[in-house]
Amino acid sequence: MATNTFGIREGEVSVELPPQPDASVYFIGRIRTPWHERKECPKNARESDAVCTIELDPRFADGLKDVESCSHLVLLYWMDKSPRNLVRQVPGHYGVQRGTFALRSPARPNPIAMSVVKLERVEGSRLSVVGLDCLENTPLLDIKPYFASTDSAPDAVVGWHQQKS
Amino acid sequence: MATNTFGIREGEVSVELPPQPDASVYFIGRIRTPWHERKECPKNARESDAVCTIELDPRFADGLKDVESCSHLVLLYWMDKSPRNLVRQVPGHYGVQRGTFALRSPARPNPIAMSVVKLERVEGSRLSVVGLDCLENTPLLDIKPYFASTDSAPDAVVGWHQQKS
Repeated sequence: MATNTFGIREGEVSVELPPQPDASVYFIGRIRTPWHERKECPKNARESDAVCTIELDPRFADGLKDVESCSHLVLLYWMDKSPRNLVRQVPGHYGVQRGTFALRSPARPNPIAMSVVKLERVEGSRLSVVGLDCLENTPLLDIKPYFASTDSAPDAVVGWHQQKS
Repeated sequence: MATNTFGIREGEVSVELPPQPDASVYFIGRIRTPWHERKECPKNARESDAVCTIELDPRFADGLKDVESCSHLVLLYWMDKSPRNLVRQVPGHYGVQRGTFALRSPARPNPIAMSVVKLERVEGSRLSVVGLDCLENTPLLDIKPYFASTDSAPDAVVGWHQQKS
């Protein structure tokens, strides 16, 4: 374990990643947002009413049929600006060491973010959505319909987070 | 567009995938479930009370700190048994052509599934969870805490689905 590598804060722990990746992904579009640096991004995406635009690669545009009937979508996207080898992190705004899998930090072995967004409009291969907090030009991996029956857990609790607030 | 390739049903539409992938993922563990064939998997994961086991690669076990304080988790996993080039699909149980991005079908350009699960127990690098519907030995990509504040949308509607039920 290296703890003094560039980009690692005191208290953070890294591991050696597997020698080979196991599978590959395509960037199927780009997410256009007003935020060009991480410090500009909203802390809580639900508190932002900024309308962001999903620009889907036109080759996949036929896949958007029926998407306009969804009030909410799940977006998966690639956060390629973060280290992938951290297992313990000290988020700047908390200052306490947490496990990577207890955080939504972009630094994780597979830097795939998941956001639930409200769909405002579909025009050709462009979607307007509300509820994102990612950087301008973030690569898109997937668009899914959000089913309240399986995806909504209003009583869910993140214990470590409750203790802080 | 090829519509008669092996594995494509009548009414389904495929596209040519990009010539090169853009990024790579690691399989960070395996999901152990009781289901060895797709037809055995529960239709709606919320209706199954089967306890499934996440076996995280021990190299990442330190990343589980604080996860036990979460009542629910988001799991991302890799569904590697499906074609990636379908943009219009005809799900067997509906028989109507839909866009891939309006479906939760495993067939999509990046076959990454997202499931919200209830966490029962953490023991070392093993997690017991309820709410999965995937095949035995499915590769795991990520574990995230589920935040009701941003991830729960109880009033979300999938219009095409409501019309059918």
